Amino acid sequence: MPYVNIKVTREGVTREQKQQLIEGATQLLVDVLGKNPATTVVVIDEVEMENWGVAGIPVDQRRQKGM
Amino acid sequence: MPYVNIKVTREGVTREQKQQLIEGATQLLVDVLGKNPATTVVVIDEVEMENWGVAGIPVDQRRQKGM
Amino acid sequence: MPYVNIKVTREGVTREQKQQLIEGATQLLVDVLGKNPATTVVVIDEVEMENWGVAGIPVDQRRQKGM
Amino acid sequence: MPYVNIKVTREGVTREQKQQLIEGATQLLVDVLGKNPATTVVVIDEVEMENWGVAGIPVDQRRQKGM
Amino acid sequence: MPYVNIKVTREGVTREQKQQLIEGATQLLVDVLGKNPATTVVVIDEVEMENWGVAGIPVDQRRQKGM
Amino acid sequence: MPYVNIKVTREGVTREQKQQLIEGATQLLVDVLGKNPATTVVVIDEVEMENWGVAGIPVDQRRQKGM
Repeated sequence: MPYVNIKVTREGVTREQKQQLIEGATQLLVDVLGKNPATTVVVIDEVEMENWGVAGIPVDQRRQKGM
Repeated sequence: MPYVNIKVTREGVTREQKQQLIEGATQLLVDVLGKNPATTVVVIDEVEMENWGVAGIPVDQRRQKGM
Repeated sequence: MPYVNIKVTREGVTREQKQQLIEGATQLLVDVLGKNPATTVVVIDEVEMENWGVAGIPVDQRRQKGM
Repeated sequence: MPYVNIKVTREGVTREQKQQLIEGATQLLVDVLGKNPATTVVVIDEVEMENWGVAGIPVDQRRQKGM
Repeated sequence: MPYVNIKVTREGVTREQKQQLIEGATQLLVDVLGKNPATTVVVIDEVEMENWGVAGIPVDQRRQKGM
Repeated sequence: MPYVNIKVTREGVTREQKQQLIEGATQLLVDVLGKNPATTVVVIDEVEMENWGVAGIPVDQRRQKGM
């Protein structure tokens, strides 16, 4: 019954990569805790780069500055 | 002062259904815990089907397979 | 497959009340959106009153002041 | 290493305002808890007004009624 | 800069298992999206079984009934 | 009506510091977006150090290693 939420910046994550994240996170819960995959839920949030900040600076500005 | 977050897949939830979810969740907190509805907040997140996985498989693929 | 998160202040919510919140939130998703209850997940978070603020004031102080 | 999530209704928050929220929230954690800004993350979620309810009423309807 | 939140029921997850969840989730983001592990954050929430419901029933009751 | 969630490691955050976080985050939303403080909610989550990972390593181990 685990619930996993993965937040990443929105920058071209493909459908196949999302599938791999969902599959990998589910398998991780099976491997480490023996959870039932049938009731394991994974939700991916893609966040606009201007809405995500690190060190007080939005990611879109960090990218422009080569950080 | 409760805060309720409802996450569902994005597949045509209407404005009226959202209103019913907001109204119903607020009323639930009033009925069960006697909370003040004036300060009860409900936030609905609609998640793309390719971003939501169950049993390690994205929901859009599950739908295609009739799961 | 909905996921519902209910956050309330920790102040003596009973096991029976939690059961009613879980049952009621699940039924709401069934009634409004026709969701399958078998895959509807509800998680209740109980938050210490000193960790929850409204109007810039922690709830424990609000209670002391009769707010 | 703090993580701050700010949820507001989606109604024209500018890129500059987002930058100010990110900067201000990061600084708050530095000032109050002495956290390292380099590993402080801020994520802003903009929520559609019809998806956010207060007192059992969606915000878009509240605005129409002058609430 | 990804952020991963893993929610599981509180039932004896060991320190070593938590370490494996943190390591595995971080590696998943590196492998699938090429993210920098140094800024990948994983937060594990352990939720009391009476606070987690599936199919409208708290997990502690499901366990008692052998579900 | 903003909602702010602050997650920090559990390591002796005092009641006064929590009050400052709640007050500061609320004021930030007032200053930057002109939000009404009366309906601004702040929730602080304190997360055990073994439940929080950065760079694939739990914070309690990072502290032991002087990271």
